[in-house]
Amino acid sequence: MRNARLIYLPLGGAGEVGMNAYVYGYGPEGKERLILVDCGVTFGDMGSTPGVDLVLPDLTWLAERAGRIEAIFITHAHEDHIGALAWLWPSLKAPVYARRFTAHVGRLKFEEAGLPREAIRTVEARPATVEAGPFRVGFLPVAHSLPECAALVIDCPAGRVLHTADFKLDPTPLIGDPWEAAAWAAIATEIAPARVRAMVCDSTNVLVDHPGRSETAIAAPITALVAAREGMVVATTFASNVARLKTLADAAVATGRTVCLLGRAMKRMVAAAMETGLLAGFPRTVTPEEAAAMPRDRLMLLATGSQGERRAAVAQFARGKYLGLSLAEGDLVLFSSKTIPGNERDVLRLVNAFSEMGVDVVDEQSGTYHISGHANRPDLETVQDLVRPEMVIPMHGEHRHLRAHARLAQARGFASEIVANGMMADLSGEVPEIVEYIEAGRVYLDGTALVGAQDGVIRDRIRMALNGLVLVTVIIDEDGAPLGEAWVETLGLPERGRGGTVLAEAIESELARFLDRAGRSTLGDDDRLDEALRRVVRQIAMEEVGKKPEVTVVVSRLLAE
Amino acid sequence: MRNARLIYLPLGGAGEVGMNAYVYGYGPEGKERLILVDCGVTFGDMGSTPGVDLVLPDLTWLAERAGRIEAIFITHAHEDHIGALAWLWPSLKAPVYARRFTAHVGRLKFEEAGLPREAIRTVEARPATVEAGPFRVGFLPVAHSLPECAALVIDCPAGRVLHTADFKLDPTPLIGDPWEAAAWAAIATEIAPARVRAMVCDSTNVLVDHPGRSETAIAAPITALVAAREGMVVATTFASNVARLKTLADAAVATGRTVCLLGRAMKRMVAAAMETGLLAGFPRTVTPEEAAAMPRDRLMLLATGSQGERRAAVAQFARGKYLGLSLAEGDLVLFSSKTIPGNERDVLRLVNAFSEMGVDVVDEQSGTYHISGHANRPDLETVQDLVRPEMVIPMHGEHRHLRAHARLAQARGFASEIVANGMMADLSGEVPEIVEYIEAGRVYLDGTALVGAQDGVIRDRIRMALNGLVLVTVIIDEDGAPLGEAWVETLGLPERGRGGTVLAEAIESELARFLDRAGRSTLGDDDRLDEALRRVVRQIAMEEVGKKPEVTVVVSRLLAE
Repeated sequence: MRNARLIYLPLGGAGEVGMNAYVYGYGPEGKERLILVDCGVTFGDMGSTPGVDLVLPDLTWLAERAGRIEAIFITHAHEDHIGALAWLWPSLKAPVYARRFTAHVGRLKFEEAGLPREAIRTVEARPATVEAGPFRVGFLPVAHSLPECAALVIDCPAGRVLHTADFKLDPTPLIGDPWEAAAWAAIATEIAPARVRAMVCDSTNVLVDHPGRSETAIAAPITALVAAREGMVVATTFASNVARLKTLADAAVATGRTVCLLGRAMKRMVAAAMETGLLAGFPRTVTPEEAAAMPRDRLMLLATGSQGERRAAVAQFARGKYLGLSLAEGDLVLFSSKTIPGNERDVLRLVNAFSEMGVDVVDEQSGTYHISGHANRPDLETVQDLVRPEMVIPMHGEHRHLRAHARLAQARGFASEIVANGMMADLSGEVPEIVEYIEAGRVYLDGTALVGAQDGVIRDRIRMALNGLVLVTVIIDEDGAPLGEAWVETLGLPERGRGGTVLAEAIESELARFLDRAGRSTLGDDDRLDEALRRVVRQIAMEEVGKKPEVTVVVSRLLAE
Repeated sequence: MRNARLIYLPLGGAGEVGMNAYVYGYGPEGKERLILVDCGVTFGDMGSTPGVDLVLPDLTWLAERAGRIEAIFITHAHEDHIGALAWLWPSLKAPVYARRFTAHVGRLKFEEAGLPREAIRTVEARPATVEAGPFRVGFLPVAHSLPECAALVIDCPAGRVLHTADFKLDPTPLIGDPWEAAAWAAIATEIAPARVRAMVCDSTNVLVDHPGRSETAIAAPITALVAAREGMVVATTFASNVARLKTLADAAVATGRTVCLLGRAMKRMVAAAMETGLLAGFPRTVTPEEAAAMPRDRLMLLATGSQGERRAAVAQFARGKYLGLSLAEGDLVLFSSKTIPGNERDVLRLVNAFSEMGVDVVDEQSGTYHISGHANRPDLETVQDLVRPEMVIPMHGEHRHLRAHARLAQARGFASEIVANGMMADLSGEVPEIVEYIEAGRVYLDGTALVGAQDGVIRDRIRMALNGLVLVTVIIDEDGAPLGEAWVETLGLPERGRGGTVLAEAIESELARFLDRAGRSTLGDDDRLDEALRRVVRQIAMEEVGKKPEVTVVVSRLLAE
């Protein structure tokens, strides 16, 4: 194809951990046929996105080119890879391809959203492939912290791209696909003497200096920890980490404890893993009611909430009861998980609440009870050496990760470039070349509405939360004169100001004085009146309580009949 | 004195790191003469205290007994020990005692607040003492992360209490008072055969297993780091860590760089340390204007903002320029500091912004470039063995720290008890005994107003931020009928709902229908009307955008003339 090029455009995930969405395209400039790899979410927080339920990548660029999309590929069932699919698919409407477990999770989401199940198609691992326009895509099973993750081997006339997805080098991952060096090496050798054009690679753990360890390495320490406890044991991890649930459940069985699953996600994930045949040998579980009747030292509760989420099972235990169960002095809560940066305060709040109850808490302790699902720096070097790509493109990481990863690759002789969200790279040449900058923002799911990050909705919420709000209502009569006095309500502001004056009354008095003096030209002009009232309010509030609040003015004008 | 007792009552600091405020009392029950040790603040956050400037301990209990307060002692000049003094002193009005540097900082605060400078009295270190009712108090110099910290040796007829304040065992702290085992041992030996009744002890680092190291240990690594850099170096730490500023400045001089101080707190602290004679040999600094004219590789900027504070110098660099200076590719930002839990997200935001600029960031890296100001677990054991108190009372820590500290002490043969905020302990007996529970809350400084944590002001702000706000104004005419239609404004809510309807208009239509149908009994009753309108708004909002917003209704009634 004349002047055809291979492009790569991350719209999410390259500049943050979360909301992964990577576009590849092949064809003449501006007419490339496109595929989307992953469609994930990230989570908001009270500090920057109060009230927001989910944060999605802004796929406007892609939706405007929906006719050129050949397919969507989902590498695995983590929310940061699949969570936005049901929300954004209606604007893309391309067939979705995933391995069995991932497709199962995706179909559950589609059913809930009233979308067609059949849009999601199950794919077998390599050597099976999916034809998608100029692309032929194969799923290479990789080990990760949930079942059936897959790297994508993406072939097109411009060459082969290996999109690693999230992976770790675990030869014994307990559940799911083991790391096989030969399978990765084959990606390169089977097309020799051509080389893999680009490896687009997970950067999450590039700053971790030691090689990763296997899931099996933590089984013995966890079993020993549980065996030494005389009370109840509550263990928490991400519900999708089915291998970890198995490790924990095995430790329960080995120490004579019965397992009880707590939390919707936990039950749903275990069910999904069983239905898809991935979770063999998981012990019989009991219901919370049954658990409540059993001796505490014969129980292990597997509970959601490892990140301190307020509504999850662990947080509910920290506040008191959950489904009739509660913790007591001498019990143990095991966080078999890593606290994601930003969640420390929430997790520590729980730890301190448990401390007040006399409940012991054990956390990851430098990898004794938790192992990451991502490749560490030496592991990244290992795959570089196996695949020997012409270029390494870091993805799945904050900017500091992408930068460290690009430096690592360059230092080891690979062409590399930081391609952050919104940067379109042409991968057709000898080195990656940034050819265009796309507006790549975020969209908030707020209740059931999608809100653009720049729409000002969240900005207004943050302003109200920081500054408080004053409402002023004024009625102007048929003759253009104020009818009665202005009415003031304050929200989120101290009731009283200096010297004990009620703030709302202080503002009302000053507004009354202002309206008395105001001329027709001010009273008759909505904008001028609004601005003038606002200024008075802010000035009095500053004097009384030292803050300039947000102000909303409602002027009602009575019409002559 | 008949039935006199020695009581200890933390009103802040025992259950959190921050807002330290510890009460000691001696005398008959209910008539104890009181002293307050420290009066600090902690900092709010957008998540739980949006808009709040400072969080203060609620000293209502103490203020109600102001006539019984003999004195206030401030152990050192950190904000979590002195920051609330100027705000709360007016309700206590007792003389304040502190060592020279601390008193200097306190007087600056009193001047700003228009309080009498002379209320703050400078005290020499032991053997000097202050008589305060039944108490005689001596200041024992201890090493910490700012100059002139002091433990308090508190004698009363019930015996001796050692209140350690914040301390570390640093024999060479560079600036300030070195750790002297003999001085600590003397606390015990000079009253033998009596024993120190209680050691009320810093718990901050009880979970750190290795012994602490000296400030001097990081000088060489920092100098080596700076020497290897070819661009500008920005170093940040707490401004009050004068020894660290000296370490950093010495590294600058050793590598041929000139120092420039950035940030109000940085300049103020260095000036205070110089004025009080503590900071000898600090190199000549240049102004930002002078720095801008110098070669980048000849500069070290010492900047505020190690915790990612939005308005501090480092954050301003991350956003662009600060006082005419800006960072460029190849420059280094050194965080010679520990990120306080909860600040990770803010700090990482800066790190990623610097990464985008090509600026390298180096952080504490397991103690290479930062050393804590608090005693680690082995250090706590050392002082226990030197002082051999009858009881150890853990203070200055979250509950998990207090609990671990009490366990440590108990395991080593000392009576110990967790005495958290609001728990009054009688220290007169052989073991600490909790005798009363006091309401010990928090007060927010919001602008210039003090707001009780339970007043609902902050709760309202959080609700507005999470749920958005709908304002409804309705005018009822002289005859009790609606005049025109209800007017709706939405704040912090998506503009449009399902199918693209404007949310405010959808609510207005439904309110119009409701008002049409509403009977006189509803229209005539403010509470019923308010409640009914509110219900309509929430229902429509739920249908349209999937959220139940906060609703404020203003009903204006026109009066017959």
